[in-house]
Amino acid sequence: MSTSDPIRVGVIGTGMIGREHALRLARRTVGAQVVAVADTDAERARAVATEIGAEVYRSGVDLIDDVDAVVVASWGPTHEEYVLAAIAAGRPVFCEKPLAPTRAECNRILDAEVAAGRRLVTVGFMRRHDPQYVAMKEVVAGGSIGAPLLMHAAHRNVSVPDFFTSEMIVTDTAVHDIDVARWMFDEEIVAVTVLTGRVSRKAKPGFRDPQLIILETESGILVDVEASVNAGFAYDIRGEVVGEDGTVELSESAGAIVKRAGAAHTSVPTAWIERFAVAFDAEFRAWIDVVAAGGTHLSAGPTAWDGYAATACCEAGLESLRTGTRQPVELRPQPALYSTNASTTPTEGIPR
Amino acid sequence: MSTSDPIRVGVIGTGMIGREHALRLARRTVGAQVVAVADTDAERARAVATEIGAEVYRSGVDLIDDVDAVVVASWGPTHEEYVLAAIAAGRPVFCEKPLAPTRAECNRILDAEVAAGRRLVTVGFMRRHDPQYVAMKEVVAGGSIGAPLLMHAAHRNVSVPDFFTSEMIVTDTAVHDIDVARWMFDEEIVAVTVLTGRVSRKAKPGFRDPQLIILETESGILVDVEASVNAGFAYDIRGEVVGEDGTVELSESAGAIVKRAGAAHTSVPTAWIERFAVAFDAEFRAWIDVVAAGGTHLSAGPTAWDGYAATACCEAGLESLRTGTRQPVELRPQPALYSTNASTTPTEGIPR
Amino acid sequence: MSTSDPIRVGVIGTGMIGREHALRLARRTVGAQVVAVADTDAERARAVATEIGAEVYRSGVDLIDDVDAVVVASWGPTHEEYVLAAIAAGRPVFCEKPLAPTRAECNRILDAEVAAGRRLVTVGFMRRHDPQYVAMKEVVAGGSIGAPLLMHAAHRNVSVPDFFTSEMIVTDTAVHDIDVARWMFDEEIVAVTVLTGRVSRKAKPGFRDPQLIILETESGILVDVEASVNAGFAYDIRGEVVGEDGTVELSESAGAIVKRAGAAHTSVPTAWIERFAVAFDAEFRAWIDVVAAGGTHLSAGPTAWDGYAATACCEAGLESLRTGTRQPVELRPQPALYSTNASTTPTEGIPR
Amino acid sequence: MSTSDPIRVGVIGTGMIGREHALRLARRTVGAQVVAVADTDAERARAVATEIGAEVYRSGVDLIDDVDAVVVASWGPTHEEYVLAAIAAGRPVFCEKPLAPTRAECNRILDAEVAAGRRLVTVGFMRRHDPQYVAMKEVVAGGSIGAPLLMHAAHRNVSVPDFFTSEMIVTDTAVHDIDVARWMFDEEIVAVTVLTGRVSRKAKPGFRDPQLIILETESGILVDVEASVNAGFAYDIRGEVVGEDGTVELSESAGAIVKRAGAAHTSVPTAWIERFAVAFDAEFRAWIDVVAAGGTHLSAGPTAWDGYAATACCEAGLESLRTGTRQPVELRPQPALYSTNASTTPTEGIPR
Repeated sequence: MSTSDPIRVGVIGTGMIGREHALRLARRTVGAQVVAVADTDAERARAVATEIGAEVYRSGVDLIDDVDAVVVASWGPTHEEYVLAAIAAGRPVFCEKPLAPTRAECNRILDAEVAAGRRLVTVGFMRRHDPQYVAMKEVVAGGSIGAPLLMHAAHRNVSVPDFFTSEMIVTDTAVHDIDVARWMFDEEIVAVTVLTGRVSRKAKPGFRDPQLIILETESGILVDVEASVNAGFAYDIRGEVVGEDGTVELSESAGAIVKRAGAAHTSVPTAWIERFAVAFDAEFRAWIDVVAAGGTHLSAGPTAWDGYAATACCEAGLESLRTGTRQPVELRPQPALYSTNASTTPTEGIPR
Repeated sequence: MSTSDPIRVGVIGTGMIGREHALRLARRTVGAQVVAVADTDAERARAVATEIGAEVYRSGVDLIDDVDAVVVASWGPTHEEYVLAAIAAGRPVFCEKPLAPTRAECNRILDAEVAAGRRLVTVGFMRRHDPQYVAMKEVVAGGSIGAPLLMHAAHRNVSVPDFFTSEMIVTDTAVHDIDVARWMFDEEIVAVTVLTGRVSRKAKPGFRDPQLIILETESGILVDVEASVNAGFAYDIRGEVVGEDGTVELSESAGAIVKRAGAAHTSVPTAWIERFAVAFDAEFRAWIDVVAAGGTHLSAGPTAWDGYAATACCEAGLESLRTGTRQPVELRPQPALYSTNASTTPTEGIPR
Repeated sequence: MSTSDPIRVGVIGTGMIGREHALRLARRTVGAQVVAVADTDAERARAVATEIGAEVYRSGVDLIDDVDAVVVASWGPTHEEYVLAAIAAGRPVFCEKPLAPTRAECNRILDAEVAAGRRLVTVGFMRRHDPQYVAMKEVVAGGSIGAPLLMHAAHRNVSVPDFFTSEMIVTDTAVHDIDVARWMFDEEIVAVTVLTGRVSRKAKPGFRDPQLIILETESGILVDVEASVNAGFAYDIRGEVVGEDGTVELSESAGAIVKRAGAAHTSVPTAWIERFAVAFDAEFRAWIDVVAAGGTHLSAGPTAWDGYAATACCEAGLESLRTGTRQPVELRPQPALYSTNASTTPTEGIPR
Repeated sequence: MSTSDPIRVGVIGTGMIGREHALRLARRTVGAQVVAVADTDAERARAVATEIGAEVYRSGVDLIDDVDAVVVASWGPTHEEYVLAAIAAGRPVFCEKPLAPTRAECNRILDAEVAAGRRLVTVGFMRRHDPQYVAMKEVVAGGSIGAPLLMHAAHRNVSVPDFFTSEMIVTDTAVHDIDVARWMFDEEIVAVTVLTGRVSRKAKPGFRDPQLIILETESGILVDVEASVNAGFAYDIRGEVVGEDGTVELSESAGAIVKRAGAAHTSVPTAWIERFAVAFDAEFRAWIDVVAAGGTHLSAGPTAWDGYAATACCEAGLESLRTGTRQPVELRPQPALYSTNASTTPTEGIPR
């Protein structure tokens, strides 16, 4: 890879996550070069461009033709336009989650990709690259704990911006857990129930936080997800799969242990960027490798189908949040393009 | 206590748990003396009597008059008769859970106790004496994690006898978690939902194991309980309370850590008698102390009201298991006898 | 045991540890009855006697004839007198560590016991009854980690009284670790080196705390012991045995885990009575059982020989502390009385 | 950094560690380009060159002129020649530990660097970049555990090649712990004692493994290091600093926890490249950043002085291994070039 020319990447959207992605590609991902950025906020685009030596484009769509590969990290409702443009231009595109906020938009992306006959879209479900989740999946797949029966998960955010809504706990927070469940068990989710109860004093008036979300998979695995966004004390991600013969769970992060004044203390992560730093690195490493390798399957990890299915689950979740009842998830038939699994999840390890 | 005469205890029911209780009182509880046992299986009663030097009674009811205090550890449907007889005789009575299998039976026990004007009944919810649960409750009550919002629990049994049914996962297994939730938050449970899905291959045909049970408290705290009875790998009890400002959870049991062949290993409990040995000791220590101290409130820890409320939750749970729907829990008004909390939970520690 | 008469115990010395032992025997040890106490401080003796309903004796030696078994918990230099008197009277005697402060005194005890032809003396090395140390020894003996090569230990006290000296770090603190090493490997210690360096600001002037003590066993196992007595933050006991094929270590105490403000917290013990509560219970349970069973070997666990060998190591340690050099440990030939191991260490578990 | 030209690196020595470094620089270190490699084994050099698209040089010395910066990963006795050549050519040089096997060689390197007036040499003590060691040092420096009094360390290798000797346990294994101690406490080591005892059956005949090494710092901090190289079960690195008011220790690596068959299992590292992967990444990230920034202090982290001091300690350790006695460490006066600390240790975190 170091012998070939770097992949020239354009980043559309330079807000918090977009800037993170641009810096990570520029500074930590050998073989990638961020040459172009675009944002509706030109000032913000310029600042990031200066940090990494990229060019600023007025429009995200214009940028696509001038680069080898595209990262879409703009506001969710704009994803469809940029992803479709990338597909039309034959460019591999890494799209931050959600692929798009509605099933209708995701459908059009699937149709375009199927028509193009190539898997160009990767969705930013970075947990698939987290070493602990990867190890958990290996244990489940290895069979040593028997068939999986249940999964327990918690997803706790320190806090959220003012614009965050109860609905976004489903679509922006729990969406990661939805993808994890589908990926962990290689099964679709068939129903979603969102329960709410006592509300944190730290939530805005009318805000329903925390939420307890129950997912049901095709084979009947029950997954309960605590999703909360005003936890304050930590960015705390927990997961346990219960099988017929044992369990596997994520361990708590291990830093130095300090004993003082009658107690032992370890720090816990308080930022998603800290908790999933290795996963983000591996995610882009995998993507740039797949893009550099070329071929028909230019998606590393989660495909447009995964993005579509997650959005379908979120739509069911929103309906459940509105109605208080269990909601089935309805999916279109899976196009053949997604039936083979040509791009496996690479694991982090020795230099690659 | 060692200066006064020992409390002469009679044990009704000498099956597995009854024998355990008899041995624990005789061999590990200073100030108690088991002088009488009774069982429908006379052979079994005789064997236990020989182990501890007690007398065998033909009938549980007959035994009551000859002792200072009674332990009821017989089959659930017989509890009402023995507990009512003990109340009638003015004897403190420790009744293994459930207080009685139905609300109707429990109601009659409440009525009798209220008429007697004394809290004579203690129910065997031993978790209230487990040091870890006690510490968890202290943290919740102390306020350092803010108001509680959620609780996650798991209750995994290695295996169950042939006579065990899907219903008993609610009434015999999850009943402990129901009591923990009521006690932890000092609130009644207002609704129960029992979810089932994929079934363990180790469950008998038709058996619905595991179950995911959702409890809702008066203030809206959501409690999810995984109850499974064919876990095989461990007797595994987990719990985590999520508050507005932090969490508190039971830690895993800490024994010696062995590192071998690329892994670190710790043993996990495989028997309830092992996991809750300290709690059982403390439970009887507290009971004998309260009985020896005399007075109006002769119950240590969980009262007849606690037994009644747990059974009411179980009835709702059984209806939910049958119907697949959320079921409200309806309770009679709490008699004044139970409104004061004269007998606090003692904590285990230095010799007492 | 509950069917037979209780063992009537006399306690000589009712200071901190003596009072603890008296209360534990009276209140937590079925089958034991503390009927007599003696102390040079008559007031102190009276207070304890009142707590447990025992009689006060003027002299420890006088008390011996009136009881079935004796606990010696007086000041170390007085141990020899009381232990010899108990042996002369044919009474089982539980002697708090050290058996006696000097090898000369211990020698006379050995001689007396050998002459009596019965193992009447038990030394209070309670760690042999701690479930974690027992589990560690089982792992070592089981062979799964291969032959032991090294042991690392730490013994940290929160603080010590004013009369405590640098020498007592060896004789009162590290003496437990010396016994653990002998017991863990079933080998004698052949040399002791005491190293000191930087001194805690919390130590009195001239006090050499902490100490790093190196023990060498017959087969060449090296044991390093950190002994410190002004740790302040915890009563912290650590141990790790390193074998050819793996390691086994004590785990940290597991209580509830609290997550708050970016950190996870667990409490650590701050009192020896808390850390070793289960071990003290088991120690007396075992002793009373052995005494009640009668016979020639009335010692439960550590014998007079173990007490003698520990004192010999401490003498070498004191010489090393004085000289700064490695000191050999010289032991007399082991009398045949101690060569058979008739009293095994009982393990804690279900009621017994 | 991505905007400027990459640093063109030459790697001298392409054995195991040399190849690792070459791959890491080429594939994981943005801003570095490995353009040249050299090895006495031309075949081995060619293989690595092919992997990363570098040119093969006949001689390490020849390569230096054609690159911006040099990595020396050849056999220890050749280090002096290459490092001196790099200094002469004014090239920043990253030298794998040891800087050189003897104090005499290290002295000549110090002299040359002092004469050049620039800190060009970085020594590969990668632990200074490990997040856990960094956190431990921050705790020690922060003062919350009081003044450090002791440190306990263990360094266990799975196995070693046939050419490994007892002496190399000091010079190749414990040398890392020596550097950690110097760095952790910002003090020189003044004496070294190497103790040996029972030998692992897995050690070659005559091989003294494990070793227990005692380091003493200027202020009297005692550091005990278990160094073993036939541990078999894990690459196990442990460390605990004991302060006046508390302790700080490395936690065990946290991966997924599997519960099965009565036990909980976590994997432990079995390869140094796995345990210190993040540290190696950070080490080269820091070095390339410092080199790219230019200036007088082109060393990132451990300097030639650190390499010299570590070698001096190893020489004392070898003498102690030979004689069985405590050996003082004698150091020349520290040249002024090393007195200012212009290059701080960067911490790993968000993309940089």
